[in-house]
Amino acid sequence: MAVRDDIKVLDATIRDGGLCNNFEFTDEFVYELYKTNVKCGVDYMEFGYKASKTMFKESDYGKWKFCNEEDIRAIVGDNPSDMKIAVMADVGRCDYKTDFLPKSESVIDMVRVACYIHQIPTAIEMIEWFHSLGYETTCNIMAISQVNTEQIDQALAMLAETSVDVIYLVDSYGSLYPENASAYAQKYLSAVENTGKKIGFHAHNNQNLAFANTIETMSYGISYLDATVQGMGRGAGNCAMELLIGFLKNPKYNLFGLLNFIEKHMIPLKEQGVMWGYDLQYMFTGLLNRHPREAIEFTNAKRGDYSEFYKTLLDNF
Amino acid sequence: MAVRDDIKVLDATIRDGGLCNNFEFTDEFVYELYKTNVKCGVDYMEFGYKASKTMFKESDYGKWKFCNEEDIRAIVGDNPSDMKIAVMADVGRCDYKTDFLPKSESVIDMVRVACYIHQIPTAIEMIEWFHSLGYETTCNIMAISQVNTEQIDQALAMLAETSVDVIYLVDSYGSLYPENASAYAQKYLSAVENTGKKIGFHAHNNQNLAFANTIETMSYGISYLDATVQGMGRGAGNCAMELLIGFLKNPKYNLFGLLNFIEKHMIPLKEQGVMWGYDLQYMFTGLLNRHPREAIEFTNAKRGDYSEFYKTLLDNF
Repeated sequence: MAVRDDIKVLDATIRDGGLCNNFEFTDEFVYELYKTNVKCGVDYMEFGYKASKTMFKESDYGKWKFCNEEDIRAIVGDNPSDMKIAVMADVGRCDYKTDFLPKSESVIDMVRVACYIHQIPTAIEMIEWFHSLGYETTCNIMAISQVNTEQIDQALAMLAETSVDVIYLVDSYGSLYPENASAYAQKYLSAVENTGKKIGFHAHNNQNLAFANTIETMSYGISYLDATVQGMGRGAGNCAMELLIGFLKNPKYNLFGLLNFIEKHMIPLKEQGVMWGYDLQYMFTGLLNRHPREAIEFTNAKRGDYSEFYKTLLDNF
Repeated sequence: MAVRDDIKVLDATIRDGGLCNNFEFTDEFVYELYKTNVKCGVDYMEFGYKASKTMFKESDYGKWKFCNEEDIRAIVGDNPSDMKIAVMADVGRCDYKTDFLPKSESVIDMVRVACYIHQIPTAIEMIEWFHSLGYETTCNIMAISQVNTEQIDQALAMLAETSVDVIYLVDSYGSLYPENASAYAQKYLSAVENTGKKIGFHAHNNQNLAFANTIETMSYGISYLDATVQGMGRGAGNCAMELLIGFLKNPKYNLFGLLNFIEKHMIPLKEQGVMWGYDLQYMFTGLLNRHPREAIEFTNAKRGDYSEFYKTLLDNF
């Protein structure tokens, strides 16, 4: 029944959910979600990616793939709330030296640097850059279920020497079981012992374990918890905010406001045909520890031949 | 990666799933499921309830509420497979002295006695009756999340002295988190230490934790695991068989055959309007540790006013 004051809940609906609808949320949706998150006690709200405009055409995506300063401000003004604002910067897909203002001129509080294991040196350069601009930073090492243990240890040791505030354990393929997630959690936590750095967890729901893995890793001491409303996120989606808020006993988090938002804004989104959430095809890629791209194609094609699809995945191992 | 040879998987699709469609499965469905379970290595298949025909009119339900010997035999013949056949006997809703043949004359292998905590003395009488007829027996103590610890301890001590083969931990309201489920698991396991009795787990998916709780309790030594195809069961449903079989590394369990069955028989069932599975209304009753009946009514009425429903639940605490 005790409350953990170190817990920080981050809403990643616009960022990970944006991968389901090409980031084409209406301003009303984003504004209502912002107000809801503030009311519900969410600690951070991630608005999207800061993607390179030299690599991606702005007209091909909704605005939250780019998170222009003025677009965020159109929603939050100067963000008079206690909730902090985060954006994601993908290593190799972000013009980080030109696209970020100094923190003193920006409404953004935190930059989350997402990378694969081989990009750690670049990630560190970016982290130091953002830190020098005055931002809080995280490093989200993706797809770790395909990385060998020695490489993870080395990456963690390198990151422990940097200015990064939070290192995220990311189960990109939803392939971790609670016993695996907790073993990783302990590894990450011990790597940052006595550094003041925190560990976060970002789950995917391929095997319907996103919420379970989130509270499991939390029980070992992970304190930054990613969630999205109704689990909205790429493929099988993420840890559902409503389940997480229901679980946390801290009175600062408020479930009721979130339910209003779901009713008015999430259900219509599903009715419009935006697709995410657990289904067999995602279970297969989670089970096989693979990128969900083929499962997303299967979903988009509205296929129902699960056994044939599973066979194809096995054939292409 | 090690295989646990003590694990027994029980398919409860017809029994718990029957609560979603009034037990009105076609013979073809039940036959195909039987063949699928045999092929997939499932250890037990539960065919339904042995409900009292003096309390319930046979014409009001599908046949699997009553599990007449001839109806089971019409599906399985003499059951030449290695898979065992189970039925459920509800304390207070079963004419157990008249409705069971001696095991030597029946194709049924196991009788699962389901009871609430105050019915333990009757459950024990029934267990001894079924044992004397030659059946394997289980005792499934329901709704334990609403029972105080001393009563559970007393019930377990009483059952440890009986002929029962397996005692089931049953999370009827889907209100347990993995940390609670594992604490109960350890309590149940220690109560039967050195008796040769086994412990089972039956999950409900109200907080999307049915699978997670099942593998969590298994990791503590629980060995009888209930699952249903696609989690079909009352309200939010149960632990999904496909997730469980995917997780178990024992080569005797075969996922592929199950996928064929899902494609051909489960998807059509959903398309016909049979409803089950995780949704917000079930999360609420799980969170509040309540019977799902109001959430089932909300579902059947196709309501979408989640926040209003949640408020009503809080008002009626």
